[in-house]
Amino acid sequence: MHRFRRTLGASTLVHDKVVNLSGEDIGRIEELMIDVTTGRVAYAVLSFGGFMGIGNKLFVLPWSVLTVDEARKRFVVNVTRDALDKVPGFDKDHWPDLNDLEYATGVYHQWEVMPYWT
Amino acid sequence: MHRFRRTLGASTLVHDKVVNLSGEDIGRIEELMIDVTTGRVAYAVLSFGGFMGIGNKLFVLPWSVLTVDEARKRFVVNVTRDALDKVPGFDKDHWPDLNDLEYATGVYHQWEVMPYWT
Repeated sequence: MHRFRRTLGASTLVHDKVVNLSGEDIGRIEELMIDVTTGRVAYAVLSFGGFMGIGNKLFVLPWSVLTVDEARKRFVVNVTRDALDKVPGFDKDHWPDLNDLEYATGVYHQWEVMPYWT
Repeated sequence: MHRFRRTLGASTLVHDKVVNLSGEDIGRIEELMIDVTTGRVAYAVLSFGGFMGIGNKLFVLPWSVLTVDEARKRFVVNVTRDALDKVPGFDKDHWPDLNDLEYATGVYHQWEVMPYWT
C-alpha cells in the first residue's frame, strides 16, 4: 500500500546537493537510475569529493536511504564522510554493471536496506 | 514481488521520442515525475505537437502505459494521435497540481491503469 504524496521532476533532482545528518556536504546527485520495468528509482548515483567534477568518486545508493529536504533543495543521508571514504566507489568512466543482480543486492546490503525486488 | 531487471538513467530518458503502436510520432518525454516518498515514477510528462517547443501541449501519463524500445531509444504508447488530441493537456507555463490526489487518480483512470497508491 502506497499513499500518493509528492512528486518532483527527475531533472530538478539531478545535481541536487547531498548532506549528512551533521549538515556536512557529501556530494551531489549525479543521476537517478530508473528500473524500467517497475518504474522505480533503483538507485541514486552520488558524486563525492574532487573539484569541479575532477577526481570525484561515484557511489550508488538505494533511493530509500535518501531523505529530501525540500525547503533547502537538498538530500540528506545518514552517513559520515569517513564511512563514505571507505565505501568502494567507481570513477565516472568505469561504471559497474548496475543491472547485475548480485551487484544490486550487494549495494542494498551495504546500506542495510531490503532490496525492493525480493 | 518485483524482479530487478534493467535500469536506465533518468537524464537519458528525458527528451526521448515517444511513438504509438503504428510508429507515429506522438511526442517527447519532457520530464519524469518522481514520487519522493516511495521512489516511484508517478508520471511521465509527454510533450505533444507544436514546433521547436512552441505551441506544444503537455500531458501526464502513468509510467505503466509506456514501454521502452531500448534498441531504438524511444518509448511506445498504445494511443492514437486522434485520441491524444482529445485528452485535456496543459501548456508548459500552467502545470496542474500533480500532487493533488484527485487529479492523480483522474489521470490513472483516464489511461485505464490502477493507481499504484491504492
